[in-house]
Amino acid sequence: MPEELKKAKQNGDLIIGVDRGSLLLMQMKIKPDLMVGDYDSLKQNELAKIEKEVADIRYSNPVKDLTDSELMLQYAFKDYQVDELTIFGATGGRLDHFLVNLLMILNPEIKQFARQLTLIDCQNIIKFYLPGLNRINKIAGFPYFGVMNLEAVSELSICGARYQLKKYTSNVPKMFSSNEFLPKKKEFSLSFRKGLVAVIFSKDVNRFQSI
Amino acid sequence: MPEELKKAKQNGDLIIGVDRGSLLLMQMKIKPDLMVGDYDSLKQNELAKIEKEVADIRYSNPVKDLTDSELMLQYAFKDYQVDELTIFGATGGRLDHFLVNLLMILNPEIKQFARQLTLIDCQNIIKFYLPGLNRINKIAGFPYFGVMNLEAVSELSICGARYQLKKYTSNVPKMFSSNEFLPKKKEFSLSFRKGLVAVIFSKDVNRFQSI
Repeated sequence: MPEELKKAKQNGDLIIGVDRGSLLLMQMKIKPDLMVGDYDSLKQNELAKIEKEVADIRYSNPVKDLTDSELMLQYAFKDYQVDELTIFGATGGRLDHFLVNLLMILNPEIKQFARQLTLIDCQNIIKFYLPGLNRINKIAGFPYFGVMNLEAVSELSICGARYQLKKYTSNVPKMFSSNEFLPKKKEFSLSFRKGLVAVIFSKDVNRFQSI
Repeated sequence: MPEELKKAKQNGDLIIGVDRGSLLLMQMKIKPDLMVGDYDSLKQNELAKIEKEVADIRYSNPVKDLTDSELMLQYAFKDYQVDELTIFGATGGRLDHFLVNLLMILNPEIKQFARQLTLIDCQNIIKFYLPGLNRINKIAGFPYFGVMNLEAVSELSICGARYQLKKYTSNVPKMFSSNEFLPKKKEFSLSFRKGLVAVIFSKDVNRFQSI
């Protein structure tokens, strides 16, 4: 992950630090262009040091309707009008943090940016899809994928993959996990009429690392 | 985790291995009473060795409607009529695996057992709640909690915690993360009229382990 962030910085991409992520970026010698957070997990001297370096600093209220990640998305897409946004470190450790990051795309103000957002960790890449026919390309090194309707979905179909799904309709979220690309196929098709669907591309690293 | 499993075995609790989990248990010298899976991740000699030792072995079809975890829940609650079930290793690494384990409780055949199920990893404890007034007890060593409606919810309220929530109603899942027990309080109350709600108790270990 640090390598990808360093490359992004070299490319001139906008780098955003969320809360303590700003400190982590500085420690990796990657100066964020924008930082967002209530910074309650930073010591005063840590925050003061970063504040001197970063051009655009936004302070959030810890008792608030939007999380720091949601605020960051709004700033990125609305103020900075980025075309694509990749979030690192949104999945690990505390599952309440991961789930807030996974589900924030259902916020009506953010939903429109679904196709522009990617969450990445060392074992998973998460992308989001809107209704219609979506052709999903294979990502090198990630042999498995799971398809999850985050909200009510109608006529969800998966074609051209190891396990097919035909016009699945439901009011509750469900994960169809451990699907695979067909040999020699570089894509599968995902279609649905209503709802918001996440595809999680994954690989095995150490199957029992959580034990 | 191995210690908790060893204690459970010593207590005479029913031990179930799911798929490759059976091998892991045997390696920890904890013989499962029941094993469930298609075992496609085991080598033939690994499977043969375990088959000799385990009393009740169920073989699932890899192309199936229910996942191995869902089948395991059905066997545990219906065939073995267990009062409480704790699942270890359901959260780590591949997020499609975690999400299938988190959401399987929405399966109508399993939902009735919501209050009897717990998912555990080294940093999180997940419990499920049904409509009504639920008093949620603090778990030592887990200062934070997140509340997530897994499906449509009506009048979801959190009282007696750091952040309150009043009669939240929504058709889409949402995680209210990073809440905390009040100092000196050993419980908070969680109430709702319709839906299924997960509470994730968590602690910080290494906030950036996923990067």
